[in-house]
Amino acid sequence: MTAREIALDDIESLAVGAWILGTGGGGSPYLGLLNMRRLYAEGHRIELMSPFDLADDDWVAVVSNMGAPLVGQERLADSRNIARAVAMQEELHGWKFRAVMSLEIGGNNAIQPLMAAAHLGLPVVDADTMGRAYPEAQMTSVAVGGLRPYPCALYDPRGIEAFVQRVPSWKWMERASRKICTEMGSIASTCKAPRTGAEIKEWGIHFTTSKAIGIGRRVREAQRRHEDPIAAVLDEARGTMLFRGKVVDVARRTTEGFLRGRAIIDGLDDDRGSRLELAFQNEWVVAWRDGAPIAMSPDLICVLDSVSGNAFGTETIRYGMRASVVALPAPPVFLTPKGLQHVGPHAFGYDIEFKSVFQ
Amino acid sequence: MTAREIALDDIESLAVGAWILGTGGGGSPYLGLLNMRRLYAEGHRIELMSPFDLADDDWVAVVSNMGAPLVGQERLADSRNIARAVAMQEELHGWKFRAVMSLEIGGNNAIQPLMAAAHLGLPVVDADTMGRAYPEAQMTSVAVGGLRPYPCALYDPRGIEAFVQRVPSWKWMERASRKICTEMGSIASTCKAPRTGAEIKEWGIHFTTSKAIGIGRRVREAQRRHEDPIAAVLDEARGTMLFRGKVVDVARRTTEGFLRGRAIIDGLDDDRGSRLELAFQNEWVVAWRDGAPIAMSPDLICVLDSVSGNAFGTETIRYGMRASVVALPAPPVFLTPKGLQHVGPHAFGYDIEFKSVFQ
Repeated sequence: MTAREIALDDIESLAVGAWILGTGGGGSPYLGLLNMRRLYAEGHRIELMSPFDLADDDWVAVVSNMGAPLVGQERLADSRNIARAVAMQEELHGWKFRAVMSLEIGGNNAIQPLMAAAHLGLPVVDADTMGRAYPEAQMTSVAVGGLRPYPCALYDPRGIEAFVQRVPSWKWMERASRKICTEMGSIASTCKAPRTGAEIKEWGIHFTTSKAIGIGRRVREAQRRHEDPIAAVLDEARGTMLFRGKVVDVARRTTEGFLRGRAIIDGLDDDRGSRLELAFQNEWVVAWRDGAPIAMSPDLICVLDSVSGNAFGTETIRYGMRASVVALPAPPVFLTPKGLQHVGPHAFGYDIEFKSVFQ
Repeated sequence: MTAREIALDDIESLAVGAWILGTGGGGSPYLGLLNMRRLYAEGHRIELMSPFDLADDDWVAVVSNMGAPLVGQERLADSRNIARAVAMQEELHGWKFRAVMSLEIGGNNAIQPLMAAAHLGLPVVDADTMGRAYPEAQMTSVAVGGLRPYPCALYDPRGIEAFVQRVPSWKWMERASRKICTEMGSIASTCKAPRTGAEIKEWGIHFTTSKAIGIGRRVREAQRRHEDPIAAVLDEARGTMLFRGKVVDVARRTTEGFLRGRAIIDGLDDDRGSRLELAFQNEWVVAWRDGAPIAMSPDLICVLDSVSGNAFGTETIRYGMRASVVALPAPPVFLTPKGLQHVGPHAFGYDIEFKSVFQ
């Protein structure tokens, strides 16, 4: 057994690293981190287990907050919300969960399984289904794998509990659950279709919790040592620099359960005289340099504070910020033709053929 | 035991009478009637049981189609849809239902429990929770009675199955289920919060199936004998004539899961020179004669074909039709202060104090 207890310092690193892997989305991990500090102070401890230590017929609860991150900051501060979504699946369907797992390792959704695990006394599986954050239900490795999309439990802390019990496709799971989420105020705590150990071993994106912790640890070390934290991210995550500059404009709207908009960055240093435009739907999706697309999903586009290396979220970025835009490699499952159907630029409505930064 | 088999001829009468009690809504019963003719031809028979023959701890499935009637005409023609909504409650929650009941006795929703009952081999309870049709979830006798609003099962024949599993209020049941219904294409087959026999005996509106059959039988008799069918309705249902005329304008839109609009009728005969305006939200809600309100919910406003006595639905009424507008008395539960909060003119957004036609 490779299960190990996560130290609180690892969770501090997880918050930093997951916010970077969130590619602008997944929600700021700050409130999740505060919850975990309190839960650790109360004596809770979280075990992180390898996905390969799951039995084939173990059941795993896959959790996330769904909706517009900007609203989540105000509405889902209590760690018990996500635990309630898991309990809904247990109560209604009689599932006995072996462990909890992130739907997406990005932002606050990397912390959600830890909060649920603390309240439920379960370990967390070191894996997710995105290797980053994505806005829609069909944008996961398990959807690319054609696994069953239902049932999904949705919880609103006002006491509204809903299930999408059966759907003919992942797209319909997205449509039906999104409307409920929107009516819940554009944010809901969700426990997605439970997954077996066999499914996670075949289709999960493995060791992404450890990856996020590793990235966060390098950034925090660089901060302490007054070294370049951007270089530390690029080294740790095998990424590449896209652009450095200053944010000069942000257009943002919360609509249909998403946060959508554009950010404009004018170049500094080597990039002076150039302009980068970033489109987002919760997450950064496409980056154009002087009108030409230079990076796009599924490659990870991360907008980082040039000084601290911390991520900017699509809901927190604003005029005047000094930003370094970097690209990190996509999980291989999304680079297949089926994967690109789910998360390539066309899936977000852009008439661009995918070309990887790393080709 | 007073359970009795419903003859097919009773169902023909039910279709006519329920369409009248639908006050413009509940959907045309025509497709339901066709289904029942076929089910009877296949040998199915439906038993109608008195609500007072239910044991206190019997469970009853309360069914209806929810949404915009205009869409229901095209989308929910198959009698198995409503049976599936009942089966969803049985499968998920383990309920064993003793019988099926109408949520609303208006229009096609009076036929829905018969279709479900045929497929499930259950009797139908001679009662409903509206005594008519109403557009929203909190507009029922059981909501006025403060009974539990959840869980509600929603079924879309494309294979989308959803539950509103818990809500803090009936208004939230309306909001959450309406969004799902809207995403399902503005129509869904639903099985509402199951009710116990004790609840139905205390809060149900009793013998409304028989009432609808009785009204329909009188109309059909008058049609056969070339007598005045409007007079037959007024006599059978203790109603009063409001207005006779010709439809000169209809404005209609399907929006937010409802059919909303206005109809204008210019007076003929005794009402020549006057104009009646009717506002509807699935059902006729308020009638103004020459600008002054003369009838309003919860009194039943029924717009009938002056020649045949058959009801016009808010989705079928159109220019040129000769219409007799009549009022029928409201179920007493809706005339209480609590009842008027749920279904009085204010509940539909009209700043009018309720005054009954029958006071």
